[in-house]
This record gives sequence, C-alpha cells and structure tokens, in this order.
Amino acid sequence: MDDVYAVIMAGGSGTRFWPLSRASWPKQFLALAGNGRSLLQQTVHRLAGIVPSERVLVVTSEKHADATREQLPELPRENVLAEPEGRNTAPYVAWGAAHVSARNPRGVMAVLPADPFIADEGAYRKVIDRALAAARDGGLITIGVSPTRAETGYGYIETGVELSPGLNRVQRFVEKPDAERAEAFLAAGNFLWNSGMFFFRADAVLAEFERQLPLLHEFATTCRTQLANGQSDIEYARSRYGSLTSISIDHGVMENARDIRVVPGSFGWYDIGSWTTAYELATKDAQGNTLLTEAALIDSENCYVRGEAGKLVALIGARDLVVVDTPDALLIMPRERAQDVKRVVESLKQKHLAKYL
Amino acid sequence: MDDVYAVIMAGGSGTRFWPLSRASWPKQFLALAGNGRSLLQQTVHRLAGIVPSERVLVVTSEKHADATREQLPELPRENVLAEPEGRNTAPYVAWGAAHVSARNPRGVMAVLPADPFIADEGAYRKVIDRALAAARDGGLITIGVSPTRAETGYGYIETGVELSPGLNRVQRFVEKPDAERAEAFLAAGNFLWNSGMFFFRADAVLAEFERQLPLLHEFATTCRTQLANGQSDIEYARSRYGSLTSISIDHGVMENARDIRVVPGSFGWYDIGSWTTAYELATKDAQGNTLLTEAALIDSENCYVRGEAGKLVALIGARDLVVVDTPDALLIMPRERAQDVKRVVESLKQKHLAKYL
Repeated sequence: MDDVYAVIMAGGSGTRFWPLSRASWPKQFLALAGNGRSLLQQTVHRLAGIVPSERVLVVTSEKHADATREQLPELPRENVLAEPEGRNTAPYVAWGAAHVSARNPRGVMAVLPADPFIADEGAYRKVIDRALAAARDGGLITIGVSPTRAETGYGYIETGVELSPGLNRVQRFVEKPDAERAEAFLAAGNFLWNSGMFFFRADAVLAEFERQLPLLHEFATTCRTQLANGQSDIEYARSRYGSLTSISIDHGVMENARDIRVVPGSFGWYDIGSWTTAYELATKDAQGNTLLTEAALIDSENCYVRGEAGKLVALIGARDLVVVDTPDALLIMPRERAQDVKRVVESLKQKHLAKYL
Repeated sequence: MDDVYAVIMAGGSGTRFWPLSRASWPKQFLALAGNGRSLLQQTVHRLAGIVPSERVLVVTSEKHADATREQLPELPRENVLAEPEGRNTAPYVAWGAAHVSARNPRGVMAVLPADPFIADEGAYRKVIDRALAAARDGGLITIGVSPTRAETGYGYIETGVELSPGLNRVQRFVEKPDAERAEAFLAAGNFLWNSGMFFFRADAVLAEFERQLPLLHEFATTCRTQLANGQSDIEYARSRYGSLTSISIDHGVMENARDIRVVPGSFGWYDIGSWTTAYELATKDAQGNTLLTEAALIDSENCYVRGEAGKLVALIGARDLVVVDTPDALLIMPRERAQDVKRVVESLKQKHLAKYL
C-alpha cells in the first residue's frame, strides 16, 4: 500500500561487537548473520514489496550518516535523518513521524530496529502485513515474539484478550525478568518477547506524543511544518535536538498509551546481542566451529573465528573460544564471557587507547 | 688467542616457532630472548673478546644465507657457508674444519649451535676458555651443563674420571631419556645435559673424520686444498653436498671418537625449544603475563602474547594461553600444547597452504 513508511532506528554504538564494531562502525553495519548483507541492509531488504526505498527513513547519528547512505545507496539522501546527538528512541520516532506526516498525515509507520536477525522472512512478512493493517485502523501496534526459552535478556509483553485472530490487547510491558520469572512467563503461555517493532499512523503516534511528551510533540510539529512548506528541518533539528527529552519509545509512549495491541508471531527472531548469539546463529562444521576466515584447527571445538582476508588463524586445543581478528585489534575470549567485551571497551577508554575504539 | 675460530651451526628450519618463524625466517633469526638481538646475533655477540668476527664462520642453508649476512654485517661475506641442501650437522663441521684448516691447520674450533639462550654470560665465557684450552692440547671437548631438573627434552653425558679440575673424561652419550631415567640421572649426580657445543683443533677433528666418515674427510680435504690455493670451494661444495653422508656430529663423530672430554658448567643454558620455553624465559607482569604488544587484559593470567606494532590484543578470561600474531598468520593455543605447533605446520603442507609456512 502506498501509505506505508518504515522508520529504521539505527543509532547503535557498537560496544558489544568490538573489535569488529567500532565507534565509527557500529553493529548495524556488520554482516553478522553471514549472508553478506549488513544487519541494516538486511532490515531494509526484508521490506521489499512492502515498503519501497523512497518511503524508508533511517534515523542515525551524524557521525554514521555517511556510512548509512553508502550502505543504502537506493535511499534518497534526505531519507537519512542524522541526529546531532543521541537522545534515546522516542526522539527518533517523533522526528520520523514528522517526516511521514509531512508526506501523508495518515501514513502508516513501521518503526523497526536496524539490527535484529530474522530466520523466517516469509512468516515475518505475514506478521508485518497484519500489524500494518491493524495500525491503519488507528491503533498503536507492537509485534510480540512467541518465546522458545526462558530468556532473561529480553523484555516481555503480557497479552490480554484477543480482539481478532492474531491481534491481542496488550495487558502490560515487562522489563527483562530474572530466570525464575522468565520460567514463569514461559509456562504461563500469555507472554511474548518484546521485539521493539512498533506500528502506527503518524497522526496516532503524534497524538500520543502530544498527550505524554509535549516537548517532543512540539519538536515534531515544527519539523513537519517546515517540511510541508518544502523547507529542510535540519537546521531547526540541530538547534533543538540536545534539549529533547531523552527517553525510549517503550517507556515514553507505548507503556502508557491508551490502546496498545500486539500481533503475536514466530519468525525466527533474534536480537544479535553479543558474539555468543552470532555464534549460535552461524553455520558450524562437524566440530561445532564457525570459521569465517582461512583456518587450521587442531583438536578444537565449538569456536567462532572471524578473521581478515588473506590471513590464517591457527588454533590448537581450543574449546568454546571466540576469536575476532581485525587489522588493528584482536579479541580472544571464552564464548561465555561475551558480555565482558564492554569491559575491554571501558578499559581502552580509561587507558587512553581510544584509537582502538 | 689468534688460533681460535667459531663455527656456528645455523641450519634451523623454524617449525616450532611458527607463525613468527617461517621457512624463510627460522628460529635463529628471532629475538626470542627479548633483548632485541636475534638468537644468532646473540650467539656471535657472546664470543666478543674470544673470537673476532673475521674468525667466525656460520654454516647455514643457501636460502638463509642472505638473511644471515644481513643479521651479521660484521662478518666477512665468505665466512657464511651456504649449504645447497641440509645434510645434518656432521657435514657442517667437516666443511667448517676445511675452512679453519686452510687458514691454520692447528686452529682451534668452537662448534656452536646458533640458538641457545645463556643467562650467565660471564660463567659461560669461563667455561668456553677452559674448553678451548683443553681442545688446544688435541682432545675432542664438549660442554656439559649441570642439570637443574629431570629434563626429558635433552640428551645427557655421563661423566667419567676427572682428568684435571673442570675436565672429565666422557663415559658415554645418552639419548633423550624417559622421565624415570631422567630422574635417575639427576639423582646420580654424574650426568650432564649435552649442550651440543664442541671444541677441537681442525687437525684433530679431521683425523676423526678420516677414521669414521671417510667420505666427509675427502670432501673436507678437497675444500681445504682449493681454499689453501686461494680458490673458492663453493662450486665443488655445491656439486658434492647432496651426496655427503647425512648424520649428526654427535652420532657420526663424537660418540665413537677415541678421546672425548667434557667441561662441566652452569651458566643458565636453555635450548629455547618451543613457545613454552620462550614464556619461561620472558619477563612477566604481576599476573604472570608476558605482553610483547599493546594489550588489554580482563581476568587473564599466565599468558604469552606476541603481536604486531600498532595492533591491540584483548584477552578476556584467558589462562595459560599463547597468542602469536603476525601480519598473515595468528596462532592461539594453551601453553602446554606448544609441541603441537608442528602439527599445524604439517596440516598447512597437506592443505596446500604453503604460503603461510
């Protein structure tokens, strides 16, 4: 339908995939799923036939705007919205809504994180279609993923009554639980993973901004007016962005909105949150090794090795090891320590080794 | 004394220190002891005041001759003897003896491996002086190192009667023992490590070649005649080398010589035989880590890390790991697996990845 727009949230900082991700080259630019496309490219590509490129907007930081345009050359230049500084996700959505509204006040927005991995794209597209249809009716819609394990790394959505087939009222959003609660959620059967994907008409979400975050509503309205008059909003946005309310779209809008609905779905959704997930999603050989480089392994199992073209990585007696080699930095750790990559990044800041960040 | 010559045996192939050592850049060229000098340079430097450079000969392979001359620019060009192919150590000594004999038939030769590490150079020089003095009397002399542990990686020398202070008859040479025999040798007190350093007059060792290895004696005699006539022996050596008896100086000459004597010594002698030894000899920080590169370590202990200039190595939760990073090859293994580096090298040959050798 020609009223559908995508707003891709691409503001990642890239700490968890160091040294492949860097301050200048965050996670969304990486081909972590092993299909040759970056996560950002894959997120846009996945919308083929649903949202044409001229209606795909990407919100990213100023320092990543050029790389974003290079990764998505099919997008009109003005569709990349460059934030002068990070203010969490609610300003992304307000700014995106201004741009959509200027083009079509009743335009339907799919607000999507840039970096999930989705295994079953056919199933995903059906869920998207359902969410867009529900949003077109004026509601605020989210997608909830049917949990397959008691995951403590994701937020949850408790579902309420079924309004129509494949569409439930949202009872409440729940923060990341501890292991015991995660088990209870899985057993209860009416909890879904919060995918962070949101769908609404521009006028519907702007009404919620007006009610809940009036400063952001004022910002969006001014941008929309300038755009509707054929002007650029970038100078105004630059001057105001630093004073915008810094809050997530989840906390700032969705959790206290009047009428939130959820489309449940199962489409092999993964938040690639660490090298551990990257290993889990990757193709492995008979010894459980993922070798994304030329390699020579002796007695080594369940290792994830990423290297450089034209360079050999040799492992002897390695178990469950993550090795990520780049031209100027090399990371080696047991897979279970993937959460500690941020400690390396911290230590580099403290040691004034920022050139490696 | 001006009758003393050194013959350095520098024919190493460099398998055990891959990927820092390569087919084109074997162990003796590496600064493994961390003092900035390569093992070969250090071996020559250690003779300062005993053997001047014009009397230091180095036997190496043709493919390493240029690098050898670059590492030892103070040596006359003709002092680097380039073997057209490897025939073990007895031909080194025969060829070296020919060169020494052409200059001084009663010249005293110190035949030294290129690559030991010696911690106490003062003690070493005293032992060398004693060995050279004993060799000047016409005997075949070796240096035996007082063992400090039940090492199974070295050959041993059983000492016989003491002939004079610090000089014993050799009872017998013993191959690398198993752990039980090594313990017995250590307990017995009259066993020394075979350092592979030999001292004899050129005429004395040539007489032994004549008796035990007549083909090598003939080779040496022809070389000597050409050299004594002011000719080069290189064309003759090239034509004959491939047919020379391939045997070690230990097996071919020393073990069955008529009168072998040993100078016992303690001078911090190490055969740097693997990355494990390199770690043992290296300076460590409070966590037992040797970091020969820019590094960021989280919860990591007793690791040996060698990297490249301008590149960072980050380790998380690493214990007893060896990491050797070079521009085109990276090795990671537990320290105890150092002996398996040769398996990597073998596998590269089999996989036709010889460019990394």
